[in-house]
Amino acid sequence: MPDECECDCECDFQAPQLEAIGCDVCKSRGVEKRLRLEQEKRQQQHREAPQAVQPQAVQAADDADFLNGTRPLVRYPDGTVKLRNPHIELMDQDILYHLALGSESHDLVSMFGDVKFVVMGGTPKRVEQFAYYIMQEIGHKLPAGTTLLDISQYSYRYSMYKVGPVLSISHGMGIPSVGILLHEVIKLMYHARVKDPIFFRIGTCGGIGIEGGTVVISEEAVDGLLRPVLELPVLGKMHSRPARLDKKLTRELKALATAEDPYDTIIGKTMCTYDFYEGQGRLDGAFCDYTDEDKMAFLGRVHEAGVTNIEMESLSFAALTHHAGIKSAVICVTLVDRLKGDQVLAPKEVLSEWQERPQKLVCRYIKRYLQMKGRLSLDGHCGSMCVKSPRRFKLVQQESEHVD
Amino acid sequence: MPDECECDCECDFQAPQLEAIGCDVCKSRGVEKRLRLEQEKRQQQHREAPQAVQPQAVQAADDADFLNGTRPLVRYPDGTVKLRNPHIELMDQDILYHLALGSESHDLVSMFGDVKFVVMGGTPKRVEQFAYYIMQEIGHKLPAGTTLLDISQYSYRYSMYKVGPVLSISHGMGIPSVGILLHEVIKLMYHARVKDPIFFRIGTCGGIGIEGGTVVISEEAVDGLLRPVLELPVLGKMHSRPARLDKKLTRELKALATAEDPYDTIIGKTMCTYDFYEGQGRLDGAFCDYTDEDKMAFLGRVHEAGVTNIEMESLSFAALTHHAGIKSAVICVTLVDRLKGDQVLAPKEVLSEWQERPQKLVCRYIKRYLQMKGRLSLDGHCGSMCVKSPRRFKLVQQESEHVD
Repeated sequence: MPDECECDCECDFQAPQLEAIGCDVCKSRGVEKRLRLEQEKRQQQHREAPQAVQPQAVQAADDADFLNGTRPLVRYPDGTVKLRNPHIELMDQDILYHLALGSESHDLVSMFGDVKFVVMGGTPKRVEQFAYYIMQEIGHKLPAGTTLLDISQYSYRYSMYKVGPVLSISHGMGIPSVGILLHEVIKLMYHARVKDPIFFRIGTCGGIGIEGGTVVISEEAVDGLLRPVLELPVLGKMHSRPARLDKKLTRELKALATAEDPYDTIIGKTMCTYDFYEGQGRLDGAFCDYTDEDKMAFLGRVHEAGVTNIEMESLSFAALTHHAGIKSAVICVTLVDRLKGDQVLAPKEVLSEWQERPQKLVCRYIKRYLQMKGRLSLDGHCGSMCVKSPRRFKLVQQESEHVD
Repeated sequence: MPDECECDCECDFQAPQLEAIGCDVCKSRGVEKRLRLEQEKRQQQHREAPQAVQPQAVQAADDADFLNGTRPLVRYPDGTVKLRNPHIELMDQDILYHLALGSESHDLVSMFGDVKFVVMGGTPKRVEQFAYYIMQEIGHKLPAGTTLLDISQYSYRYSMYKVGPVLSISHGMGIPSVGILLHEVIKLMYHARVKDPIFFRIGTCGGIGIEGGTVVISEEAVDGLLRPVLELPVLGKMHSRPARLDKKLTRELKALATAEDPYDTIIGKTMCTYDFYEGQGRLDGAFCDYTDEDKMAFLGRVHEAGVTNIEMESLSFAALTHHAGIKSAVICVTLVDRLKGDQVLAPKEVLSEWQERPQKLVCRYIKRYLQMKGRLSLDGHCGSMCVKSPRRFKLVQQESEHVD
């Protein structure tokens, strides 16, 4: 860190917050110099300990890049999402194939302009459940005689439900499946002129050394070789993208776990694999050429490296949202402690309750946000039925069923 | 090729078809010797051109390995599928999570023991369509009052339909999704004691230098860096598996394309990517940091390397079926010529007809096979309705609709 400012102003160049730096000249120069010095420091550290990865240093530099350099790339001045692709603006129309939507066929601003939260989960069923759950929780009303519609039903790929400011979308299984969806949902955010959206992935995972039913909020995602990057061949060359998640959002979510929850909610490192069986060191796939001891040694090494859970989408989810400058978090519930076994043996009712836990946490966050913005209407109504008396409502339903 | 037979018979050792070799002794010895000589020839070629990859040589060697060395690993003496995983036999039960089936909860031999063909496609809708189509084509009858059921409906992941000897299953999008399914379907073949099954993947793809609507039968699958292998981290180390498809099956399928088909059916090399947008050099994803010229140069290089089409599942499909010793083929229809554009612009009706083309080819193969085995019952009936007069059948349906 330099002792004094490089330009002629007298602002506080060493202020902890970049925003606190007074003059425009110094701000830009100072930021550049800070980044250069931090990079030199990292290189120095790397020389001193070449074998150790310095995720914190990389993270800090990356946050700085994001805060300063990247913002103009990913946002218009009014906060709406900007694409890191100059070609889209030049196209006559942009078809979002896998969502069954298009920029010229649909009025995407009218349909999605009010979105703030995008919640993704694996299966159509789970995201439909979440849509009805969040509708109940935030008291969202539908006009009488209407119900939720799967907006992407004609894509036959993903399911998408909209409940006011919340989109609930299924992403299928694996990195490519969630990757295609993210490309199209990020483009959807752009076409719909959504301002500073927040993305969540809710799902299930295997735990490492933690009890089944534990909720894990991912602090970062790593691949099967413990690298915190998404690798992808592009035009015949391998590209890497850092798989970062929003630290502040992670902390805020953690703070919403309460002592009354009959389960633990922790922050941990998430390993993301390209395969469920061999890729996660399971013994119960169609192929296995390693022993139980090999597997346990691997899980032990992974555990020592700080990995708390394993799933199949976080790497792409983190890398693509980070590259798009979109705040995001991954919240998964563990179905099994892999240090104890491979097959999931908890009864169906228990598993169902476990799967609701990440939904609950995200719901708390969304409610808190809407409450702060004065947009939460908890007057007991939701859906398209206005219930005056729940008892009489039930009676009418029952009688109606038995009328010939 | 040797000039004369090694055993005492006088059969035609140089006959083009191995089946034409007369005596049993000679047949077996002849085959061994042929393979050895072919291998020596390949090694010689390899020494002469060490820098060039010899995919054909590798393929031939691999076929030989498969015929000789691998067979005992992947088949029991009666031809039923054997797993390359010693752990499964020791397990109390094996739950096929993503299929909603289990080895002890379901009588898998009764349910699936008669399966011969497994046909996989991307979406639940496509495989349901294929199930009804193949039912019609092979004249499969259902008991009156029954209809097809999605066997895996409670997995909420994949859809599976069974029509006599044919299983029709959706695999979702991307390598991990088809990989999970293959692990479980291969285990299903084992548990159900299926003999020598044949797997097909039918799908859509982008073409390179070929007209939209062309059917491509893959001769091999390569990744985004043109490597004919599936890479996967297993227990922290990168493993590679050759992505091979059955050459004979490919030729047999090609031979079933007729001059009357109003489209081309070709054999080609298929590139399989982990991403639909940047991974396939598209300009219309959420991110793109290359130019149209960069993209065209890449597609040109890929085209020169013999790639005819690009999709997202063949690498895993080829690698896992090959490793399991299961005959398999990939048949896709191109929706766009990527040398001309990225977005699919053909009208919906045209696209629907195109998507039926791979189904038709696989159907011809299945019909031919069942015909040869005398198991095809083309008596005009299918499904669970026995139609005596189609005209009167239609009338009854119509009248029935309008009765109060």
